[in-house]
Amino acid sequence: MSISLETLGDRWSLLIIRDLMVRGLRTFKDFQESGEGIATNILAERLTRLEVAGIITATREEEDRRRISYRLTQKGIELAPVLLELLIWGVRHEKTDAPAGLARKLEQQRPEFLKEIKRRWREEDPNPLLPRF
Amino acid sequence: MSISLETLGDRWSLLIIRDLMVRGLRTFKDFQESGEGIATNILAERLTRLEVAGIITATREEEDRRRISYRLTQKGIELAPVLLELLIWGVRHEKTDAPAGLARKLEQQRPEFLKEIKRRWREEDPNPLLPRF
Repeated sequence: MSISLETLGDRWSLLIIRDLMVRGLRTFKDFQESGEGIATNILAERLTRLEVAGIITATREEEDRRRISYRLTQKGIELAPVLLELLIWGVRHEKTDAPAGLARKLEQQRPEFLKEIKRRWREEDPNPLLPRF
Repeated sequence: MSISLETLGDRWSLLIIRDLMVRGLRTFKDFQESGEGIATNILAERLTRLEVAGIITATREEEDRRRISYRLTQKGIELAPVLLELLIWGVRHEKTDAPAGLARKLEQQRPEFLKEIKRRWREEDPNPLLPRF
């Protein structure tokens, strides 16, 4: 686990993974404008680190070769259970704007939720899974 | 989830939580000597942060009032599923010294494993759950 944490590094890395996983963000610009307030140099450093760790891949887009699109690898998408448990814990214990009952709903529907995350990843479905709250 | 990550902060916080949860560490000295190589000032800062966040409590020991003993709160022990998923992911994807088949075993016995972690916490069982590997 120590090694996993070394790879993931810090909260920014996990936020980037979450944004790729459920919010449909893909480009550097998407992350910059995502409202988390990440500094450009930190964002660039974290994306590189995640790529080196084999958690994301960076690909040039067909339509516009200057644009790079980020995507989770198999190893990256398999972090879904970690993020789901963290989300459930957060909704249950921290003050959030999440609707009441969400934690329970997520807990009761873990397998369905994880299946949908995997499907979206496999099919490159660009729609956000969760509305922002 | 952003708020959860703010609370947990970084890898050191999660390692401290793990060490309280499964390795039976309790005192400042235990953490210092745990082999993770955490600097004294960072350790002190993280312990304070976790206490402020309501994830751990600090209590003076009955036998030796100079010694402070740390313990997970209810909120803290409920991070067990997050750590378990992180462990499973790490064993599956990172090079570790963990025995082959451990990831599968943990995956298949999630509920039993989480139940045992809770029991140990409730009964203040000081024995490490996992041998170090």
